[in-house]
Amino acid sequence: MIKGTNASPGIALGKALVLEHNEIVIEKKTIDNIELEQKKLTDAINKSKEELTKVKEKALVELGAEKAEIFEAHLLVLQDPELVDSTLNKIKDEKINADYAFNEVKNMFVSMFESMDNEYMKERAADIKDVGNRVLRHILDIKFVDLSTLEDEVVLIAHDLTPSDTATMNKKKVLGFLTDIGGRTSHTAIMARTLETPAVVGLKNITETVKDGDYVIFNGETGEVIINPDENTINEYKDLKEKFEKEKKELESLKGQESKTLDGRHVELAGNIGTPNDVQGLINNDAEGVGLYRTEFLYMNRSEFPTEEEQYESYKAVLESMNPKPIVIRTLDIGGDKELSYLEMDKEMNPFLGYRAIRLCLDRQDIFKTQLRALLRASVHGNLRIMFPMISSLEELLSAKEILESVKSDLDKEGIDYSKNIEVGMMIEVPSAALISDILAKHVDFFSIGTNDLIQYTTAVDRMNEKIHNLYNQFNPAVLRLIKMVIDNGHKEGKWVGMCGEAAGDKRMIPILLGMGLDEFSMSPISILPARKLITSLKYEDMKPVAEKVVSMGTAKEIEEYMQNNFA
Amino acid sequence: MIKGTNASPGIALGKALVLEHNEIVIEKKTIDNIELEQKKLTDAINKSKEELTKVKEKALVELGAEKAEIFEAHLLVLQDPELVDSTLNKIKDEKINADYAFNEVKNMFVSMFESMDNEYMKERAADIKDVGNRVLRHILDIKFVDLSTLEDEVVLIAHDLTPSDTATMNKKKVLGFLTDIGGRTSHTAIMARTLETPAVVGLKNITETVKDGDYVIFNGETGEVIINPDENTINEYKDLKEKFEKEKKELESLKGQESKTLDGRHVELAGNIGTPNDVQGLINNDAEGVGLYRTEFLYMNRSEFPTEEEQYESYKAVLESMNPKPIVIRTLDIGGDKELSYLEMDKEMNPFLGYRAIRLCLDRQDIFKTQLRALLRASVHGNLRIMFPMISSLEELLSAKEILESVKSDLDKEGIDYSKNIEVGMMIEVPSAALISDILAKHVDFFSIGTNDLIQYTTAVDRMNEKIHNLYNQFNPAVLRLIKMVIDNGHKEGKWVGMCGEAAGDKRMIPILLGMGLDEFSMSPISILPARKLITSLKYEDMKPVAEKVVSMGTAKEIEEYMQNNFA
Repeated sequence: MIKGTNASPGIALGKALVLEHNEIVIEKKTIDNIELEQKKLTDAINKSKEELTKVKEKALVELGAEKAEIFEAHLLVLQDPELVDSTLNKIKDEKINADYAFNEVKNMFVSMFESMDNEYMKERAADIKDVGNRVLRHILDIKFVDLSTLEDEVVLIAHDLTPSDTATMNKKKVLGFLTDIGGRTSHTAIMARTLETPAVVGLKNITETVKDGDYVIFNGETGEVIINPDENTINEYKDLKEKFEKEKKELESLKGQESKTLDGRHVELAGNIGTPNDVQGLINNDAEGVGLYRTEFLYMNRSEFPTEEEQYESYKAVLESMNPKPIVIRTLDIGGDKELSYLEMDKEMNPFLGYRAIRLCLDRQDIFKTQLRALLRASVHGNLRIMFPMISSLEELLSAKEILESVKSDLDKEGIDYSKNIEVGMMIEVPSAALISDILAKHVDFFSIGTNDLIQYTTAVDRMNEKIHNLYNQFNPAVLRLIKMVIDNGHKEGKWVGMCGEAAGDKRMIPILLGMGLDEFSMSPISILPARKLITSLKYEDMKPVAEKVVSMGTAKEIEEYMQNNFA
Repeated sequence: MIKGTNASPGIALGKALVLEHNEIVIEKKTIDNIELEQKKLTDAINKSKEELTKVKEKALVELGAEKAEIFEAHLLVLQDPELVDSTLNKIKDEKINADYAFNEVKNMFVSMFESMDNEYMKERAADIKDVGNRVLRHILDIKFVDLSTLEDEVVLIAHDLTPSDTATMNKKKVLGFLTDIGGRTSHTAIMARTLETPAVVGLKNITETVKDGDYVIFNGETGEVIINPDENTINEYKDLKEKFEKEKKELESLKGQESKTLDGRHVELAGNIGTPNDVQGLINNDAEGVGLYRTEFLYMNRSEFPTEEEQYESYKAVLESMNPKPIVIRTLDIGGDKELSYLEMDKEMNPFLGYRAIRLCLDRQDIFKTQLRALLRASVHGNLRIMFPMISSLEELLSAKEILESVKSDLDKEGIDYSKNIEVGMMIEVPSAALISDILAKHVDFFSIGTNDLIQYTTAVDRMNEKIHNLYNQFNPAVLRLIKMVIDNGHKEGKWVGMCGEAAGDKRMIPILLGMGLDEFSMSPISILPARKLITSLKYEDMKPVAEKVVSMGTAKEIEEYMQNNFA
């Protein structure tokens, strides 16, 4: 039995499909039949176009317009006469084989785009490489795993899954994911929870241990993986799977119910989203609102800033679809590890401690004001709450609020309507903000604690750094003390306090947070009903001493074990 | 009048010398007289050798063996036959001018070393470039400012000063520094305070505003700079300078006195050092101990780890020279922005949030144990206090102490003597450590607060990042609250609490720290007597409400202004 990081709950049993990117070997050959060779190219291109059109349509239905655009870009590459005609000419002029000629032309374009000092052009290079390999595989008739056309049910084994993998895969046939790398906050893990697919990540060398066709079973809740198990184990896991499915059904019965403790304390269970398309998952899981709408996705994978109109449409879509439930929309949180291809940024030695989020927005008010205008205009379509990210001082909060007011008065002058009841709050993700939350609370309607960054800064541990991964732990006692401080300070000023980090959906954290008095929990859609089940089974008064107890403990390990033993 | 960052106190009046690195222009020429051209090369090399020998000897006396080694390395480059003979042959074979030939050969070596994936070799490339440019200047007879041979007194104006500049300069002729970039913790600022030279940094474009020979006056305490002032202003500054010198003399009278408030509270005023050579500055300024000996300098500018014996000698030297005063030696704090050429480290996205200091030492116990053995062996020669850097959790502290105990028992077995009264403490520079300092205090003899990193992590601001410099401020209220928390928690367990960051020597911070009950202040030598003067003029009981008042304020600006108005 191998153990990895539990990334998405559920039991999976099935045949392994090991994703490897088959090497494409190309040799230069002299050919006689020019027309035949040219036909090989045009056939391969046509096949690729057919495939891509299908994939694009699938993506459009299942993942929304934004992700479908990736494949539209791939299709455009194939229509580029420079690429196709150059190859046809090269075959004729040099009397060489189609794959060699196409590869040469493709590589020339790739290196041309790669050499440009511009993120957008570099992304185009990656597109050409991707789609070029697809064409080469057709010319050479190399079998490759097209995840969009999976016919049999499989457990997907990969070093890591790319956004393109998860975007194209036929989700009905994928029983689960197992990957070599990644943690609970990696792309694969987040996608698995979004898709409600069981997953274990960070297994180190699972792609080497498992062969195609091996029978694999795993438990996404414990991180346990077994390869080619015996009959007894298979039956045991089938029972577990049945139990899991049954529990899932039981959870269905919680839909429409209140999230209220046995002794009557009501909390709000909301969800985190990245695009308007994610709202459906929240509705399916009966979320009571959106606790975090990460607007940066609106700005990514593009060649220029989204217009006010584009933003307005996205915000409006989310607000309308959940109305009258509250929607917390976070203003642009770019920088750090999130770059925009069209926004030139200085290289920073420590981007996580750098020019990002509200720091950038206060500096680039043109960008900030456009977003605030779009938000205000959209506010008439639902229950909007605006949230500023990465606030580390009172000055920043006051400046952000001042700019919001100036945009409001611009709209007033133009006679444009907006809601007069918008709550304005801020993320607590920098220790300094938590430490002066008594003062900040006087100037906001709410706080939302972002645990991922708060842990990172409080412990000085980059959460992406594998080498010190053991130091990054949500049960860190210092972080728990800060969380308690923020909740207490918020309540003293009569403000509500939420949490939109990964911790809010963890069943070992929920009792602590409940005991501390957290008002709103925002999480992955998949965690909402289990959280409601847990909360409705607990007494608020009983959780208060639990919260008191853990903040007196000295180590994350001690706290984690205590919660594991008593609540998991 | 221009205003910059006050980096080192004092008044300077004098002629400006603008340091610019004159461009070296090299053209390829065909020559007839081979011997003449070869002689140009050998003459230039001989002149360079003479210069470097002088510079090296000067550095040896004034800065110690370690810094002199830089120039020894430069001399070795000039003795390399590959470099010299290759150039002589090139002149003969290709009939070209000496500067062109030498430059070609030099560049070949530079790019060869630069391409090697090894920090040590890359440093060698920089050496060759440096010394190569010296030779080229002699061949071409380009005048350049050799700071080691300054004849007239000057105010040095530069974009920034490099360690090589400050190491070679004739300090008797340098009245002060003015630079375009840098903050209070930049190399130039720290060197200025070490050398007791007035300095203003971060002036943005002073190298463009001032011309060679302009008359410049400035105040290192206020950051004010005036170019070509009128007679009245000159006289005014001459008076100021006289007053400053007089005060400096008055400070002399404080030597040998206790650092005790008017109402009898005694604190310890200690100094920060990087090498045993720095001890003299502390003795000159009547330091009551060493509050921070940064041992990483022992490990830098070398090709391999220092042996136990080498370390033992350094620690012994410091302990003996200050005996029986207490010496806090901090164990290796490498990583982050401090790399070792001979220690392969993975590239990190956020090195300040990465694998560094105690994290590295707990992982690489071979390195850690060698240092601890050397420290323990040296302990018999004085009053040693061992301090661990970058502790962020109780587990790390306990592990570090366990390793120390295991080294002690190794020494016991070998019958090697060490002091039985060594205090063991830790830095508080990570917010999580401050937040659980009540628990940590039970396991240490003392805390020392490192404000530079503590500010950085608490506010999520890289202190080297110019773009967000305005967010980095030692008066940050959240940081002050953490400092108070640490002092209170230390005292509750009967442990003393010190500070070894830049803030401990700031006269606007001292009243706050005193009021919070800080026991030990460790600072640049230059700040010790002014701090004693301030402390002996204050009442501890009066400072308590000052400390209470500032931690209730909302912004760094408000606190800084309050302290500026009342104590500066």
